[in-house]
Amino acid sequence: MELGPPGGSGPAEPGPRLRGLRGADAAASASSLSRFGAEAGCRAPAVAAVLPAGGSGERMGVPTPKQFCPILERPLISYTLQALERVSWIKDIIVAVTRENMETMKGIIQRYQHKRISLVEAGVTRHRSIFNGLKALAEDQPNCRLSKPEVVIIHDAVRPFVEEDVLLKVVTAAQEHGASGAIRPLVSTVISPSADSCLDHSLERARYRASEMPQAFLFDVIYDAYQQCSDYDLEFGTECLHLALKYSHIKAKLVEGSPDLWKVTYKRDLYAAESIIKERISQKVCVVMDTKEDEEHVGHCLEEMLKTELNHVKVTSGQDLQQIILEQCYNFVCVNVMTSDFEETQRLLNMLEESNLSILYPVVVISVHFLDYESVPLGQKMEKVMQIREFAKEAKKRNILLSGLLIYFPQVENNRGLEEQKLRESLRQGTTIISALIKERNSGLIGQLLVA
Amino acid sequence: MELGPPGGSGPAEPGPRLRGLRGADAAASASSLSRFGAEAGCRAPAVAAVLPAGGSGERMGVPTPKQFCPILERPLISYTLQALERVSWIKDIIVAVTRENMETMKGIIQRYQHKRISLVEAGVTRHRSIFNGLKALAEDQPNCRLSKPEVVIIHDAVRPFVEEDVLLKVVTAAQEHGASGAIRPLVSTVISPSADSCLDHSLERARYRASEMPQAFLFDVIYDAYQQCSDYDLEFGTECLHLALKYSHIKAKLVEGSPDLWKVTYKRDLYAAESIIKERISQKVCVVMDTKEDEEHVGHCLEEMLKTELNHVKVTSGQDLQQIILEQCYNFVCVNVMTSDFEETQRLLNMLEESNLSILYPVVVISVHFLDYESVPLGQKMEKVMQIREFAKEAKKRNILLSGLLIYFPQVENNRGLEEQKLRESLRQGTTIISALIKERNSGLIGQLLVA
Repeated sequence: MELGPPGGSGPAEPGPRLRGLRGADAAASASSLSRFGAEAGCRAPAVAAVLPAGGSGERMGVPTPKQFCPILERPLISYTLQALERVSWIKDIIVAVTRENMETMKGIIQRYQHKRISLVEAGVTRHRSIFNGLKALAEDQPNCRLSKPEVVIIHDAVRPFVEEDVLLKVVTAAQEHGASGAIRPLVSTVISPSADSCLDHSLERARYRASEMPQAFLFDVIYDAYQQCSDYDLEFGTECLHLALKYSHIKAKLVEGSPDLWKVTYKRDLYAAESIIKERISQKVCVVMDTKEDEEHVGHCLEEMLKTELNHVKVTSGQDLQQIILEQCYNFVCVNVMTSDFEETQRLLNMLEESNLSILYPVVVISVHFLDYESVPLGQKMEKVMQIREFAKEAKKRNILLSGLLIYFPQVENNRGLEEQKLRESLRQGTTIISALIKERNSGLIGQLLVA
Repeated sequence: MELGPPGGSGPAEPGPRLRGLRGADAAASASSLSRFGAEAGCRAPAVAAVLPAGGSGERMGVPTPKQFCPILERPLISYTLQALERVSWIKDIIVAVTRENMETMKGIIQRYQHKRISLVEAGVTRHRSIFNGLKALAEDQPNCRLSKPEVVIIHDAVRPFVEEDVLLKVVTAAQEHGASGAIRPLVSTVISPSADSCLDHSLERARYRASEMPQAFLFDVIYDAYQQCSDYDLEFGTECLHLALKYSHIKAKLVEGSPDLWKVTYKRDLYAAESIIKERISQKVCVVMDTKEDEEHVGHCLEEMLKTELNHVKVTSGQDLQQIILEQCYNFVCVNVMTSDFEETQRLLNMLEESNLSILYPVVVISVHFLDYESVPLGQKMEKVMQIREFAKEAKKRNILLSGLLIYFPQVENNRGLEEQKLRESLRQGTTIISALIKERNSGLIGQLLVA
């Protein structure tokens, strides 16, 4: 379970262990190490990561430092930690935070069950924070609590979408070259202004790159560089690759990164990150039914319709719920054909509560009921189904967003064709509503009974 | 009405004239020109803008060129045109599009009622497209249809949030210096790779800037430069400031731009743009009531609650609806205290339809009703209010997103205090729902009757 899906199309897998998964964990860890060997052509080194997170986020224009800004109610830095800790061959993750934010950070680690994290105090600049992180790993320091790694990754707290793939590339390159960093093409032309704010010259865009994160270094290379570098470097410098070049004479190997590596800098980046996360956790929908017998019933029609209409979404039927929860599906459509009770929905909510699935992401559950105006008066049915508000309030406490959906099941006397057509209309409408609820994941709409 | 709000906190104002606004238009136009004079210390020049929009958007990873990607169902380029055309002193806007997209572009101009736009055919590169745009303004061209401006703005179709402020700055600077462009600080360090993809050197971040758009030029300066420049420049160059320097020997004046000037490049930028637009059009909510007499009633309580809970949102009461629509409020809460009919909501929908308000942005209308279990049975009330689905379907055709909200109005015998408390709970819940509907603006949830 610790290996990320290739290509970054799926969500980063969570830090907290899903219950009953110790065995799978160990297996994934082994396969990840062998993958290291195969791609690198060399033995797997001991790797740690240092994450400077002492920034104040002034560019964001919000009072909260950007690494602590919430995305789906969880701080940004928790997503970055999750992305690093799912990589089993990173043994230690050192986070540098300011003294004021130390308790906040401890709270985040506890709440989201992050593992292998050590905290150090941030310095007043980025370089000083990184240096403090490196000291915690250096054996020559008196209060060193961790063992010195061969390779150290340096990453930003505000780049939550880093994939194992690029981490592996920079670590492998650092092993070989001493230093390595991810780069991206420049989006804008870079120009040099003269003293009077006029254009002095512009750089040929194709000849330059943007230096991004992660970077990786042989520990001794970067630690030596930091020990030698000047106060001016520590105060005004920003680029670790530059320090490795200047003080350790190591020319870093540059590795092409994906666009996902971008740094959350402005408020619009927070918006983008939220949309990306929402999109990633909306790729799978599980349909659970309260009967397995009748293959013809409306529940199956709804499932088929979901498959057709949400064609980018993987719709699975909830035959083996335990397994689907383990595979981190964050969206459930619970179809109640047989009764207007909540037995099946309740059973699903209990299973979700027993797993740790909703610790990291809000889980959407939609309890679907069918309405036949003929057999039960609308009012009576509605009052019964309205109980959903109470269930939803309880579920919200566990980060589960429960809504109800009532699908109109038409009965047209002596006209089977018309009946069929009207049913399809209702189901299509239901699919639109399900899609909207999953896509938006807005807790303001929980406990509502929507009508298709 | 053509002047944008200062600081970019409000939405760009629409191109289509709101009916009955000719007078206000003329006044705004005059004030805009006098503002030009005051800031520039010189006479207002004749200004045109050229917008290269021939790109294929390959970096986006989607088949639609990014300038045509929809945001709230409207193509990105339409937002950029809107931002330019609200600036009354820009006389002509030349858009360069590929032959394949010519009809699409004409459709966009017609549908969103864009004004002062001329289309030219794009070249195979950005520079060639700009050159084609300039030719359409140059009097020495045989098929020139427009008059030559003194200053020409060059902007990107994929930078929709450009403010009048920065346009004014670059035009003024171009008048004085011959050329001018907006710049931003670099977000990443820029490095130069060696031939074997290792770090050669890194640039000192503080000494460089990112060159953004808009840029402005004395027309003759940039037109001469394009006429002289080599095929190599036209094929591989990207920077107009560089051409002005190289061929017309003009050192462009650089102007600090706001973060809003960023270029929509990746899919995440589309997400960010959508969130920014949604946020901008959610800043004002108008509360309309079906009675003006009783100052004590629940409608007023709801309005007060909205003011308290949505503290970043301007909540106005709909005393003068015509004026509020003219001021471009895109969110309406229609409170029906006296009846469970839709008279008031219908009246509002009619007014919205008569105005052109929803041409550019989807307008949210929430029809609020109060539910007293004691006096009317739930079922009966519900069936009546369910008519909202039919109204919503009709409204959707005019880009109006109509939902219903039923607020539980409790009656507790002999306990006024408890009654009051329960009412406040319902109203708070209603406020949360209203906020979610306005924020998400999801057309999948129209016609629903939500319950608070």
